[in-house]
Amino acid sequence: QVESDERALINVDKGLSFSKDSLFKLNLRFRMQNRFGIRTESGNDLSIEQTDFRVRRLRLRLDGYVLSPKMQYYIQLGFSKADLDLESGGYAQPIRDAMIYYTFNKNFYVGFGQGKLPGNRERVVSSGNLQFADRSIANGVFTLDRDFGFFGYYTLPTKGRAEYQLKGAINTGEGRNPSPGDAGLSYTARFEYLPFGKFIDSGDYSEGDLEFEPVPKLAIGVSYNYNDEAVRTRGQLGSALYEARDLQVFIADAMFKYMGWAVMGEYFQRVASDPITQNEDGAIRTVWVGKGNNIHLSRMISRKSELAVRYASVRPDEVVKMQEQRLEETTLGYTRYINGHRIKMQGNVGYSWSNKQIELVQTSNFWFATFQIEFGI
Amino acid sequence: QVESDERALINVDKGLSFSKDSLFKLNLRFRMQNRFGIRTESGNDLSIEQTDFRVRRLRLRLDGYVLSPKMQYYIQLGFSKADLDLESGGYAQPIRDAMIYYTFNKNFYVGFGQGKLPGNRERVVSSGNLQFADRSIANGVFTLDRDFGFFGYYTLPTKGRAEYQLKGAINTGEGRNPSPGDAGLSYTARFEYLPFGKFIDSGDYSEGDLEFEPVPKLAIGVSYNYNDEAVRTRGQLGSALYEARDLQVFIADAMFKYMGWAVMGEYFQRVASDPITQNEDGAIRTVWVGKGNNIHLSRMISRKSELAVRYASVRPDEVVKMQEQRLEETTLGYTRYINGHRIKMQGNVGYSWSNKQIELVQTSNFWFATFQIEFGI
Amino acid sequence: QVESDERALINVDKGLSFSKDSLFKLNLRFRMQNRFGIRTESGNDLSIEQTDFRVRRLRLRLDGYVLSPKMQYYIQLGFSKADLDLESGGYAQPIRDAMIYYTFNKNFYVGFGQGKLPGNRERVVSSGNLQFADRSIANGVFTLDRDFGFFGYYTLPTKGRAEYQLKGAINTGEGRNPSPGDAGLSYTARFEYLPFGKFIDSGDYSEGDLEFEPVPKLAIGVSYNYNDEAVRTRGQLGSALYEARDLQVFIADAMFKYMGWAVMGEYFQRVASDPITQNEDGAIRTVWVGKGNNIHLSRMISRKSELAVRYASVRPDEVVKMQEQRLEETTLGYTRYINGHRIKMQGNVGYSWSNKQIELVQTSNFWFATFQIEFGI
Repeated sequence: QVESDERALINVDKGLSFSKDSLFKLNLRFRMQNRFGIRTESGNDLSIEQTDFRVRRLRLRLDGYVLSPKMQYYIQLGFSKADLDLESGGYAQPIRDAMIYYTFNKNFYVGFGQGKLPGNRERVVSSGNLQFADRSIANGVFTLDRDFGFFGYYTLPTKGRAEYQLKGAINTGEGRNPSPGDAGLSYTARFEYLPFGKFIDSGDYSEGDLEFEPVPKLAIGVSYNYNDEAVRTRGQLGSALYEARDLQVFIADAMFKYMGWAVMGEYFQRVASDPITQNEDGAIRTVWVGKGNNIHLSRMISRKSELAVRYASVRPDEVVKMQEQRLEETTLGYTRYINGHRIKMQGNVGYSWSNKQIELVQTSNFWFATFQIEFGI
Repeated sequence: QVESDERALINVDKGLSFSKDSLFKLNLRFRMQNRFGIRTESGNDLSIEQTDFRVRRLRLRLDGYVLSPKMQYYIQLGFSKADLDLESGGYAQPIRDAMIYYTFNKNFYVGFGQGKLPGNRERVVSSGNLQFADRSIANGVFTLDRDFGFFGYYTLPTKGRAEYQLKGAINTGEGRNPSPGDAGLSYTARFEYLPFGKFIDSGDYSEGDLEFEPVPKLAIGVSYNYNDEAVRTRGQLGSALYEARDLQVFIADAMFKYMGWAVMGEYFQRVASDPITQNEDGAIRTVWVGKGNNIHLSRMISRKSELAVRYASVRPDEVVKMQEQRLEETTLGYTRYINGHRIKMQGNVGYSWSNKQIELVQTSNFWFATFQIEFGI
Repeated sequence: QVESDERALINVDKGLSFSKDSLFKLNLRFRMQNRFGIRTESGNDLSIEQTDFRVRRLRLRLDGYVLSPKMQYYIQLGFSKADLDLESGGYAQPIRDAMIYYTFNKNFYVGFGQGKLPGNRERVVSSGNLQFADRSIANGVFTLDRDFGFFGYYTLPTKGRAEYQLKGAINTGEGRNPSPGDAGLSYTARFEYLPFGKFIDSGDYSEGDLEFEPVPKLAIGVSYNYNDEAVRTRGQLGSALYEARDLQVFIADAMFKYMGWAVMGEYFQRVASDPITQNEDGAIRTVWVGKGNNIHLSRMISRKSELAVRYASVRPDEVVKMQEQRLEETTLGYTRYINGHRIKMQGNVGYSWSNKQIELVQTSNFWFATFQIEFGI
């Protein structure tokens, strides 16, 4: 079984698993991502402006069940500075996932706790199953991320090969580790369609076709989120708004895999009726309203090596153009899968430009390169 | 064996236990409490003022011994925002318990490290053995909580059924994770009397009569704490005082269980000679001096279901009435014990009023309701 | 095998070890150090100025390999307030070590991640293998501590008994858990010479001759660190400078053991061309430039008991004498090794003086005493 961030991981081939009959199971796993990255001064000036040399992620994960395989849990703790949300100040938040699941039958299970919202595909793919060192800039701006609340997952029984899934969640709307707060909740619905049936090893939520799908597989998903009285600039994420706003996010995404080739695409839109909030001193904080895209194309060039290319953009609406910029980024990635996604070496190089001005001479543009090793069980 | 916060947990039926002969033992456990709560605007206006939707507790616990069963340890880490003491700002404090115990004989053991003071019963009951979603408001104001230092536990050998216990501790007086500081220490003594003998499964420190005691059992406890040069408003807890004060806390409590019925009562008093401290700007911070009560009555209505009711109050002394309010609270609780206290679902509804004015029309009064699932091993 | 902070710990006698053939191994360990310490008002006035009563260290450690014994990992998390670097404010940093190692052959391995720099011996000795309750004041001022980056370890193959080791590292220069930052890196080289061959149980990196070396053993090490554009007062540690400075640190150290006797000595020097930095308001922060020493002499007085004495000093250069003081400290230590370094009781008493004025009457001088229990697996 491949790790999913929407279920407890019950069967593990590698790693540590403890069980007693069908009464108890605990799988213990960890993973770390160590990175060396650089960013140039500009498109022309290749001197190094910034180095990114750190433990990007370090996670402990406990999955399993108690009393009966129907009663599952999934806990994930993160300890790196970025995991703890300390890059941008604030307080340490080690809990990423703390879910309790109850499985009614093979088509229906519900969850209660903190976990990933059924939003865009690249976010729901575990950070341990990515084909680039990080997720795209579009995910950064538009993702629904994690939240606390009630979750439901339903697979429509069908006779054919095709699969239909419905996912829904009711949450605080304030993101990870909320404090007791106002009453405005967040509502998320997602529909997924897999016309050619299940992917091998849950490959619709793992990047790169490491499984070399012998027949074409496709997954299409659409998500909608309504965040009532959101208090952060990007809904579940971002700095505090000066006033609450009602946000809506639309997401459409797809994953296609065949014979070592994979394509993943995502489209995003966030809307809010009055995105600009102001405090008494006239300072402004705005909801990030606008559109975004992310597309990956990858091919396994051997059983264990992959080449991938990504283009992503975020495009603010006219109303917030004073506060937010249009950004675009293209990245070329090579990954050596030493032990599947569990142990891999990744090299990424890319170019980032803003406001449609791709010319190297622009000082806000830059090249970047990242070398990352992921190591886990 | 049932979990106690005054001993390492050496024998576990469920969960993970590793051992090598009598040379080494490690029990690994976790538990989480996920919660959805609401609070109304007032007694009359039932619109929702606040939601409380979060991981309330998430704990990892390591117990065991090394070299000999006489040399025990007990480590508990907490990772939720409330566990880390981040609800009210401040720095992250993952360590709850870090105790080293030496057992001289079956009647006497000592501890060194950070752990719970031998104070009020409801606090010493593990948060995994509560019958309501949270402890009472009286515990919140008067508890001795945890501290770092030396602990001793002695059971007087007797010939009869009755049991007499003496507990004592010398500590920093500053609460959990103190920094190096001033010399004023804290001294705690507790005496417990169990006239009808031991409870089944240490039930004197577990709420609710899940054991259906076939004969009546009673435990009575009295604690006294002297906190020399305390620097926080509630001794081991609370914000910083402007000047140190010497505090005394008196506690009397009792637990009674019989045939599925349980009664737990607690009485508190904190005194300080000059409870008001002031800084140069005239701002005031006061020691919370006054009295409090907490009483629970519960009955198992089936082998796995319980109804419980609680009344609690805190009553500040005249001298701090400008700073602190009299609060009262009554709560009705239903608990479904799916796997004893380890996995349970809890529903609580209650009403809170201040300054003796119980009328619904008072705007500071409110109703509250909480749904909580506890899940652990 | 004895714990080393420059390798994963693969073979453990005690503690928890999980493995599957030669495909996977995980060793799980913890350790805590609980302490009661006091410091007097001055040399003459023995009233207690400060108590130090706390969990000094609480660590979880995961070591092992995946896929092949050549691919090793070593993760260490720290949870006490001091471990988290919260004693002096700032943000919580649980990650101490997060290393991935690749072993080419028995003489050469490389690492990538966060770990200890190949600097002074007392720092590289694990805090679990110290003979005093804490490292010396010279280590505090001059140590290279931990950093993130690339590490290499090479043992020169020789035919004789003597052993020559080369160690090197390229790092951020900003210390533990750096954020993405400027381009100035840090370069460290170390050379070690063991003329009489390997110590029993890696005793060159463990304090005290618990092994009672039957023949004399000696290890000599020299380290050099160049920290380009360092931004902290002590390089990898300390508060932020107002401007970046290039620092150099020279270290020479040695360890000698024979028949229960051990001597460890360290010499330090830090230089910077213009150590004083100033902000616009005229406030000053200086690089700690100067010299330091640390010497330990110890003898096992029985199979399990040791007496040790330490003298350490730090001596700022003339140019920073306004900001930094000359400090000296001498400490007498008794250790009872109940289970080697894993479980031990330590008693230290010492005297600290500044500016060469050793007289008891000086108010800035003080006596200190510490009682510490270390408990771990």
